[in-house]
Amino acid sequence: MTSKTNPGNFFEDFFIGKNIIHATPRTITEGDVSLYTALYGMRFATNSSDMFAMGIGFDAAPVDDFLTFHMVFGKTVPDISLNAVANLGYANGIFGRPVYPGDTVSTRSEVIGLKENSNGETGVVYVRSTGTNQDGEMVLDYIRWVMVKKRDENSPAPESVVPDLPAAVSAEKLYLPDGFNGAGYDPDLSGSRHFWNDYQVGEKIDHIDAMTIEEAEHMIATRLYQNTAKVHFNQHTAKDSRFGRRLMYGGHIISLARGLSFNGLANAFKIVAINGGRHVAPTYGGDTVYAWSEVLEKIELPGYEDIGALRIRTLACKDQSCADFPDKDADGKYHPSVVLDFDYTILIPKTAVESI
Amino acid sequence: MTSKTNPGNFFEDFFIGKNIIHATPRTITEGDVSLYTALYGMRFATNSSDMFAMGIGFDAAPVDDFLTFHMVFGKTVPDISLNAVANLGYANGIFGRPVYPGDTVSTRSEVIGLKENSNGETGVVYVRSTGTNQDGEMVLDYIRWVMVKKRDENSPAPESVVPDLPAAVSAEKLYLPDGFNGAGYDPDLSGSRHFWNDYQVGEKIDHIDAMTIEEAEHMIATRLYQNTAKVHFNQHTAKDSRFGRRLMYGGHIISLARGLSFNGLANAFKIVAINGGRHVAPTYGGDTVYAWSEVLEKIELPGYEDIGALRIRTLACKDQSCADFPDKDADGKYHPSVVLDFDYTILIPKTAVESI
Amino acid sequence: MTSKTNPGNFFEDFFIGKNIIHATPRTITEGDVSLYTALYGMRFATNSSDMFAMGIGFDAAPVDDFLTFHMVFGKTVPDISLNAVANLGYANGIFGRPVYPGDTVSTRSEVIGLKENSNGETGVVYVRSTGTNQDGEMVLDYIRWVMVKKRDENSPAPESVVPDLPAAVSAEKLYLPDGFNGAGYDPDLSGSRHFWNDYQVGEKIDHIDAMTIEEAEHMIATRLYQNTAKVHFNQHTAKDSRFGRRLMYGGHIISLARGLSFNGLANAFKIVAINGGRHVAPTYGGDTVYAWSEVLEKIELPGYEDIGALRIRTLACKDQSCADFPDKDADGKYHPSVVLDFDYTILIPKTAVESI
Repeated sequence: MTSKTNPGNFFEDFFIGKNIIHATPRTITEGDVSLYTALYGMRFATNSSDMFAMGIGFDAAPVDDFLTFHMVFGKTVPDISLNAVANLGYANGIFGRPVYPGDTVSTRSEVIGLKENSNGETGVVYVRSTGTNQDGEMVLDYIRWVMVKKRDENSPAPESVVPDLPAAVSAEKLYLPDGFNGAGYDPDLSGSRHFWNDYQVGEKIDHIDAMTIEEAEHMIATRLYQNTAKVHFNQHTAKDSRFGRRLMYGGHIISLARGLSFNGLANAFKIVAINGGRHVAPTYGGDTVYAWSEVLEKIELPGYEDIGALRIRTLACKDQSCADFPDKDADGKYHPSVVLDFDYTILIPKTAVESI
Repeated sequence: MTSKTNPGNFFEDFFIGKNIIHATPRTITEGDVSLYTALYGMRFATNSSDMFAMGIGFDAAPVDDFLTFHMVFGKTVPDISLNAVANLGYANGIFGRPVYPGDTVSTRSEVIGLKENSNGETGVVYVRSTGTNQDGEMVLDYIRWVMVKKRDENSPAPESVVPDLPAAVSAEKLYLPDGFNGAGYDPDLSGSRHFWNDYQVGEKIDHIDAMTIEEAEHMIATRLYQNTAKVHFNQHTAKDSRFGRRLMYGGHIISLARGLSFNGLANAFKIVAINGGRHVAPTYGGDTVYAWSEVLEKIELPGYEDIGALRIRTLACKDQSCADFPDKDADGKYHPSVVLDFDYTILIPKTAVESI
Repeated sequence: MTSKTNPGNFFEDFFIGKNIIHATPRTITEGDVSLYTALYGMRFATNSSDMFAMGIGFDAAPVDDFLTFHMVFGKTVPDISLNAVANLGYANGIFGRPVYPGDTVSTRSEVIGLKENSNGETGVVYVRSTGTNQDGEMVLDYIRWVMVKKRDENSPAPESVVPDLPAAVSAEKLYLPDGFNGAGYDPDLSGSRHFWNDYQVGEKIDHIDAMTIEEAEHMIATRLYQNTAKVHFNQHTAKDSRFGRRLMYGGHIISLARGLSFNGLANAFKIVAINGGRHVAPTYGGDTVYAWSEVLEKIELPGYEDIGALRIRTLACKDQSCADFPDKDADGKYHPSVVLDFDYTILIPKTAVESI
């Protein structure tokens, strides 16, 4: 009779090339989309209206790309980060085939890097995780690295392998939608007349709006994604922890920032890449989250006349207006309000439909 | 480089005849219906069961008419009431074609009235808003008026135009369902044996039950409707406001009162008109809402032998039982517990199915 | 003019053989499933993935059996337990035809036992409740007994009839799935390599994880099930009650315990019987719930080579780790942390797919 419960993997359990098939494939439904809208106030027309989405070339309203991200991420938690001390970063995230309600997403991961920390207590594990739909098509492929506890401090360190990670996903690696129909993109319905041509590199946008997050909300979200990390759910033990509170799933802030970014980036109709990201500080129930964005790069997409890409950096701050764009200082130290620094690439029509 | 965020419209931005196409068309889904049920405890058989609904002549279970209302209302907020000081009233609301899960609702508005206030700081804007489905059929058409800030106190006042609003939608303007089949209306399944014939004008009904509203609940609801009014979501700024709290979306109370009204009006299977309504006082998280109703009018529907209409006035009260029917006093001053006074018209079978 | 509201039934209103058709048939949808996942963190692959479910012989992902239970239970409340003092127990619960999104479930009950209490103020009512789908197929059939107030202490006691209840549903009465395909049961996707062959009678499993429950969460759940019992919703009156708090619907704990049980019973892919159950103590918003399980019985299923049944007893505890298996003492007195003691039967493959 062995223990029937999952102890999670420790640093020693990972080796380069290890493949993990994650449990609980997930059929993503209209119900998930409704909850997602209700938790973050999403208003992007492409994800909200089948008619709008079909008008620009989708089969129906695809689910928000970050909902796909959470669904894939959540599945990796029991195998990758149950014994994690910290979620350190993301890189090289590529969104593939759009996910539609009814699609079933399965997730697997491969260990691509390992580096023991000098304290001998923990190590950094790099994994490449891939979500695929029921037809085997990739829907999301990304790398993350986490600091994981060792089971035994005396176990020998593995050979260090640190993968070479790109600063950003390059344009030719982006998965672009087939048959985008710019003539169907109605700016009255999308909610903004600001398009690719109107944005400038270095431009900063305060998204103005803010949301206070309740404990019930972040727990409902995190369970929806079937993310089981204990720190999000148990106030009985959290009250005696360093923070005294349940820690919020960092991804909740990513989606909240995306929701807030509608006010300023309403035409960012599709996320195509996650270039990097850092959860700068923890968030808790009761925090109020604001966000601002900076345009890092304007990307031409060869073969696509009517859409371009923008590389965007969105920062989320807690209990602090973003009117002054709270950021890192010259020493790289973040303003104390910053909780998220996220770098991603979106698609946006080049100009208003009238002139296409 | 211009500001990319939406500042909303000020009083000066409205003119008689101005047409606004609102952003973010919305495909309403089964997921939205589940959340609606879960937020308000809806139990009307017509909206709960495809079988019941089809048995009385619908194509499937239509969504609750007030869910349609919120979806349409929410879309108007960024253009009409982002700079509103108060939501003053509703009139002439007509529910048209039933909305079924899968339908996509788009909303547009026309400015039909303007009146600057004597203080020169604000004005009243009257708009007629219309929601239509993917086939262009009207699903809701209603008038509301809001008090909106002026951008500049010195800008000249427009000519005052105050539309002539009916006290109630007249019977001949009601949109009645095709092919209602009274024989399919089973009172065991609907939950009540009280029908049109059993109600009397002037009758008052205490709906007995009550609900305490949590902050997470009203925010989840309001975001589901894609209503972006800042006052509902930001405790960080609300704590320093006059109220010190997030204000609840008034429509949340309308639906909660409708949910409570099941206990007394279970056979009110369809809402056909909003005659008027007033949010008498604000509500906040933690408030407990009760409701009572008064039958204002019994309406015969020519050509419909087995259904009639009731014009109902439902009042919602906070932290106060409605056993004594809290109301306005002789001077028109409301009992301090009253938060909503809502006047609408419902359809109800004339008598139990056995005797039809 | 009679009262239009439902006063509920009192003890005197029940008689042996009384049949009650409950109101509000319910079409169960993907939206309900999403909320259920989001409220309890369900991860069983069979309920999560259409592909997985179809691979083992279901038509699609069936809804969690306890979601079916809550939907059926909720409908009985207005007729059976609106005037109940206590929900005393469950017996002989058999899950029949799986429920799929889109199915409409109707509920009826028959009174099968009555026993007045010696105080003359209350009596125990035993009902057998049956949920059926749109094709008239039984989806759940179970007995519960509740203590109900008498309307009048002076009314005469009925003849006592106490039904003979089985300690557990016997194997031959279980409704087993047609065409189960063990070869499709992938343990990588189900999340565990522990199968029927690996469990032993008397084995105890601490499910480790825990969840803190917010007021918004249990109210959202209880309304989703259209359960109208007043004690769950009204803090305005609850603040003056014996507990000072809203009481949580006991079924919320059943589902939470089932969700937690994934960690140790991940391959329990179908619940087939509720043998008994007791809500040992009330729970409130803010409580943190843990769970542990004991294997009571291993059941061979004649004609089914690749699946067996386990009779499981799951206990939920509040604000107390289950590492030490809090239980009844020798006198039958429960550890003060125990809130639920639930006895049910699940199906589980006999061994990993590789060796079938």
